[in-house]
Amino acid sequence: MSVLIIGSVALDSVETPEGKVNRAQGGSASYASIASSYWCEPAVVAVIGDDYPKSYLKRMTDRGINIDGVEVVPGGKSFHWSGFYKGTMHEAHTRETSLGVFQDFHPRIPEHLAESRLVLLGNIDPELQLEVLDQLKSPQLVVVDTMNLWINTKRSELLKVLSRADIIVVNDGEARMLAETIAIPECARYLLGLGPKFVIVKKGENGAQLHGHDNYFFSLPSFPVEILNDPTGAGDSFAGGMLGYLSRLPRHDGRHLNQALAVGTIMASFCVEAFSVERTAHLTAEEIKHRLGLLHTYTSFDAVEM
Amino acid sequence: MSVLIIGSVALDSVETPEGKVNRAQGGSASYASIASSYWCEPAVVAVIGDDYPKSYLKRMTDRGINIDGVEVVPGGKSFHWSGFYKGTMHEAHTRETSLGVFQDFHPRIPEHLAESRLVLLGNIDPELQLEVLDQLKSPQLVVVDTMNLWINTKRSELLKVLSRADIIVVNDGEARMLAETIAIPECARYLLGLGPKFVIVKKGENGAQLHGHDNYFFSLPSFPVEILNDPTGAGDSFAGGMLGYLSRLPRHDGRHLNQALAVGTIMASFCVEAFSVERTAHLTAEEIKHRLGLLHTYTSFDAVEM
Repeated sequence: MSVLIIGSVALDSVETPEGKVNRAQGGSASYASIASSYWCEPAVVAVIGDDYPKSYLKRMTDRGINIDGVEVVPGGKSFHWSGFYKGTMHEAHTRETSLGVFQDFHPRIPEHLAESRLVLLGNIDPELQLEVLDQLKSPQLVVVDTMNLWINTKRSELLKVLSRADIIVVNDGEARMLAETIAIPECARYLLGLGPKFVIVKKGENGAQLHGHDNYFFSLPSFPVEILNDPTGAGDSFAGGMLGYLSRLPRHDGRHLNQALAVGTIMASFCVEAFSVERTAHLTAEEIKHRLGLLHTYTSFDAVEM
Repeated sequence: MSVLIIGSVALDSVETPEGKVNRAQGGSASYASIASSYWCEPAVVAVIGDDYPKSYLKRMTDRGINIDGVEVVPGGKSFHWSGFYKGTMHEAHTRETSLGVFQDFHPRIPEHLAESRLVLLGNIDPELQLEVLDQLKSPQLVVVDTMNLWINTKRSELLKVLSRADIIVVNDGEARMLAETIAIPECARYLLGLGPKFVIVKKGENGAQLHGHDNYFFSLPSFPVEILNDPTGAGDSFAGGMLGYLSRLPRHDGRHLNQALAVGTIMASFCVEAFSVERTAHLTAEEIKHRLGLLHTYTSFDAVEM
């Protein structure tokens, strides 16, 4: 089934204890589409300036990503984020955000992409997420990501988006902010009450949880990486990998979502091993298969009899 | 196989956002032995003053726990810890620690207990842990717990203990302190280099990991509890449950340790639902079985094909 990914295609200048990059390929839609491209041929809707390196776009088209929906604003500046991570790299610190052409962005879904069945509404202004939803003809699975900024500044618009979502993907901090309570199961129940079928709570190096109605629950640790170079894009790679895998399945029930979480977990684990999309853009099927097998082994245990 | 648990039998005054208790039953050996008692008939070695409530000891003997090794010092004061937790309760804050009779404690293992095959060296001074090891005739499985205090003040003694351990149980912070590095896989390799067959890294609400030689690895999320009343004793209940389960098995390889981690995880989940040992001391086999089944369901997924 066809996959559409809306988000940012951006430039990132990132510094971590392991090194730094300047104006590297970044943005939620870049990370998510590249991660998903091992499972499907996604299309991206985003905006860039004509300063955006052609080589970065080629990296996407080389992976079969459709960029018909990436609007190029002549004379415009691409979205640029500059930030750093310290110590255990749990938290991103922003040095500067230059919205550039993103400032006046209104996503236009090309006619042939409006039929897309699976949609990832990456972490952008909920008003824009609503504009996207209004242009889609018959979405079957809408996955929504968001961030603390929108929870704080556009709560009512965000709640509208969430009411139209099938799956909400948030990190634990965002879940707590949205639900205004501490216990994650309670946060998940609050979010499920807003309308979606499933809520995914990402906990970074501590894994991810899937919450559904009727107390459906699945919990998965992260994949243990040896090299943590740059956590930027891990969440987007998670969502992209997940959606890519789901696009291959006829149904999206708990059992398949469990597997999709495993795929997302693996794609995130590759992402953090290098800066930008350097690792994620150059994987082999063998590498992905191997790590999926390891994750299964790492988390399986025989039922315990009393 | 016979199980021996060395640690503190203490009084805890604890305050959390959910309530408080005064001079309740506490101490690592209390928690661990009660959790293990659903799987074996453990013996405890510890020291108390004659101020220690008989009802607390009865709670232990009622659960089949052998307290022949619990020394009562006439006129002595029992170990008393007073502390509190705030917010998400991730961290214990100490108000006061009165060592009492623990100050001059030297564990004496009664003759008939010196033959014990499985031993939990609870979180006490590593010098005392060494004294215990010297009194054991033929231990088959030595599990060692410790804490930041001993890592800071008795590092060389602690390293001696760890070199004689089969399994080290630490939390992630302790693993990092011991190994003096951040990445947990690296910490685990350091600890495995000290001698034990397995290293268990507890991450509280984020689950636990099992690391072994030849890259053996298993990771388990925590059991999602609805009610978090008091995290005190969760780690001890985890270790106790684990050891109790292992005492029923002829071998202690990775596969069985995976299961033991599941048992430990479940016992810890009961522990935090009430203050002191109130919940852990009054479980039914049905409750334990049910939660073990849920944990298995919550963590299982079908292998993913590419």
